[in-house]
Amino acid sequence: MIIIRDLVKTTGVKILLVVLDGIGDLPCKEEKTPLELAKTPNLDSLVKKSATGLHLPIDYGITPGSGPGHLGIFGYEPQKIVIGRGILEALGVGLEVKDTDLAVRGNFATVKYENRIPIVVDRRAGRIPTEENRRLVERISSHIKEIEGVKIILKSGMEHRLAMLLRFPYSLTSEAEKINDTDPQVSGKPPLRAQGQTEVAERVAQILNQFIERVAELLQNETQANYLLLRGFSVKPSLLSFEEKFGLKAGCIAVYPMYKGLASLVGMKVIPFEGETIKDEIETLRREWDHFDFFFIHIKKTDSYGEDGNWEGKTKVIEEFDSYLPELLALKPSVLCITGDHSTPCVLRSHSWHPVPTLIYSPYVLGYTSQRFTERECLKGELGVFYSFKLMPLLLAYAGALKKFGA
Amino acid sequence: MIIIRDLVKTTGVKILLVVLDGIGDLPCKEEKTPLELAKTPNLDSLVKKSATGLHLPIDYGITPGSGPGHLGIFGYEPQKIVIGRGILEALGVGLEVKDTDLAVRGNFATVKYENRIPIVVDRRAGRIPTEENRRLVERISSHIKEIEGVKIILKSGMEHRLAMLLRFPYSLTSEAEKINDTDPQVSGKPPLRAQGQTEVAERVAQILNQFIERVAELLQNETQANYLLLRGFSVKPSLLSFEEKFGLKAGCIAVYPMYKGLASLVGMKVIPFEGETIKDEIETLRREWDHFDFFFIHIKKTDSYGEDGNWEGKTKVIEEFDSYLPELLALKPSVLCITGDHSTPCVLRSHSWHPVPTLIYSPYVLGYTSQRFTERECLKGELGVFYSFKLMPLLLAYAGALKKFGA
Repeated sequence: MIIIRDLVKTTGVKILLVVLDGIGDLPCKEEKTPLELAKTPNLDSLVKKSATGLHLPIDYGITPGSGPGHLGIFGYEPQKIVIGRGILEALGVGLEVKDTDLAVRGNFATVKYENRIPIVVDRRAGRIPTEENRRLVERISSHIKEIEGVKIILKSGMEHRLAMLLRFPYSLTSEAEKINDTDPQVSGKPPLRAQGQTEVAERVAQILNQFIERVAELLQNETQANYLLLRGFSVKPSLLSFEEKFGLKAGCIAVYPMYKGLASLVGMKVIPFEGETIKDEIETLRREWDHFDFFFIHIKKTDSYGEDGNWEGKTKVIEEFDSYLPELLALKPSVLCITGDHSTPCVLRSHSWHPVPTLIYSPYVLGYTSQRFTERECLKGELGVFYSFKLMPLLLAYAGALKKFGA
Repeated sequence: MIIIRDLVKTTGVKILLVVLDGIGDLPCKEEKTPLELAKTPNLDSLVKKSATGLHLPIDYGITPGSGPGHLGIFGYEPQKIVIGRGILEALGVGLEVKDTDLAVRGNFATVKYENRIPIVVDRRAGRIPTEENRRLVERISSHIKEIEGVKIILKSGMEHRLAMLLRFPYSLTSEAEKINDTDPQVSGKPPLRAQGQTEVAERVAQILNQFIERVAELLQNETQANYLLLRGFSVKPSLLSFEEKFGLKAGCIAVYPMYKGLASLVGMKVIPFEGETIKDEIETLRREWDHFDFFFIHIKKTDSYGEDGNWEGKTKVIEEFDSYLPELLALKPSVLCITGDHSTPCVLRSHSWHPVPTLIYSPYVLGYTSQRFTERECLKGELGVFYSFKLMPLLLAYAGALKKFGA
């Protein structure tokens, strides 16, 4: 087993990884994909001097969620790492998760009481407006700040959803998360009591049950959202940090909380900035250029348009990104990689299993194998189809930052 | 580790897997392979709307037997499963193997007696005619029906070969098969006594030795086939069934016993039908269309002609299959996959290690990467070169039957 860290010699390398979320696609119009439809003069000339191929996010036929999708291109074997649903929910709403936290997905529900026993009437509390959710979360937060020395941190999601962190005074292991969901999954039944399968988990469960009871008391006069169901209990996965793994000081430039969260999970520094356009992201990159060895820039809109089935929108975002390419190249990165975390074909309106076009620009490529940066042209490239978690060793190699293995 | 079964959502999918046995080939005439020589108008138009690639049956450079070849495309890691030679022999002659069976390869031999000790003169009994073999097997079967409560089931193979099952009143594990072959491998030596390495195996060995002695008595007046050598002792491998693994109710349409046997080994239902032509197989498919989620259709002749070095014959079978393609498409499968279990190049007249052309027709392909369904054109396809046991997850994905992994 090769430990990449043992081979790394990072001497002034600058690796720039651009993730066009959900970039891979299928034919949308006249048998062409958005990458094929887009006018991309800058990519067209860059691709000829690049190594190309397609990465397989997880495995053949397997469609990744955002979590496994990003872990793969960050160099982690995504099949070997479980990121709990509570953790993803917390990252998604922008909570910073620590080793001492138990993360939870929550949702407001409607219950009626029969002989003082709550019975679930609507598991989603009629999908209350997000505004209403915020008001209730504020109310709960101002009344319940901690239980038995465990800090309670809440943040609203969309509609009836919220994320919660129980912040303990000590680090937690996966022993702490072995607790059943309290959501009974059907209406007409009482919520389940949280029960721990281990001693540590049982202590957590008792705190959760106290919390639920106090919330029920606080919300007893609400007509819709008068109860809270909790599930997806999970602790931060124990991972080698990106710097420990690859010897690179990494910065993340992203707009959406989920991707900042995933980057922080592997120990990247999330760089704060104003604005949310590609332009804003690139300005931030320029400003921070001297402070990191590795940059992860996340561009979300390609995925959003894919999820909407809007191939014209997706095509335009690609063209917009193309227009900024000269600015990225002007920074003279050792390696520039452009890829996605997965495909989001407009015809499917969802993530998919299809391999993701990948371009690596470096002085050490064969090149002139692909005419354009598209799904079909990348098939002709020197990288072939490869597992996503092999991308990081490739980027290090193309940056001249990996020593020989063996003598 | 991803368990495919956890991601499967089979709602009315129809997956059709056509195996053209030994389809892959090498240049035979004017630098063209049989797939390139064949006139295949229907495949030519289908391939453009399909995902293409080549599967690697076992691993680089490894030539598969029919057993591992089929297990791979059925989604089982062929390197991790051992199908004993006795089991393959039994399946090949059309015996149904149960959990309670010990399967054995046998062959008639000629011995002479020196001081009442048999000495092998001809390990293959002069390759007696198959007819003669049948006469002897019938004779043995009518005299020896069971030994100590263990049922003896015999069936002739070709020439001097036969298959035998010892059917116990209880299930067997691989402990039972740890018995040495009785074939001494050279002439001029006595056959070996069967000896078990475990307690269970020793009990089996004693039954085998009794059987051999009784057969020797029965055949003492035969001039050629007067003895039986036994080897390849094996029990049915313990496998998750195809339905347990992929959630699909699968039917097998095949003419030759070996392929029916392999399908039944993974729990597919072997569909009985009259006739043995491609036409007969397709009529059976149409008749059974509503009763299964997954069909495996096996077409043997491509391999037989390959083994004979007859590229003209192989080319004609490909053309015959092509003529039936519209009938397959008329059934409107969610996914149609056309491939082989391995290559059988005419110049080699045997199975080979060469990757096998594969076509997946589904609404969710990139397509327009290969102009024809040939070895060289499939190299240009979106599936690349992939391990055969990844085919099943791909087929499920292209049928829209796999949920997302992670959030």
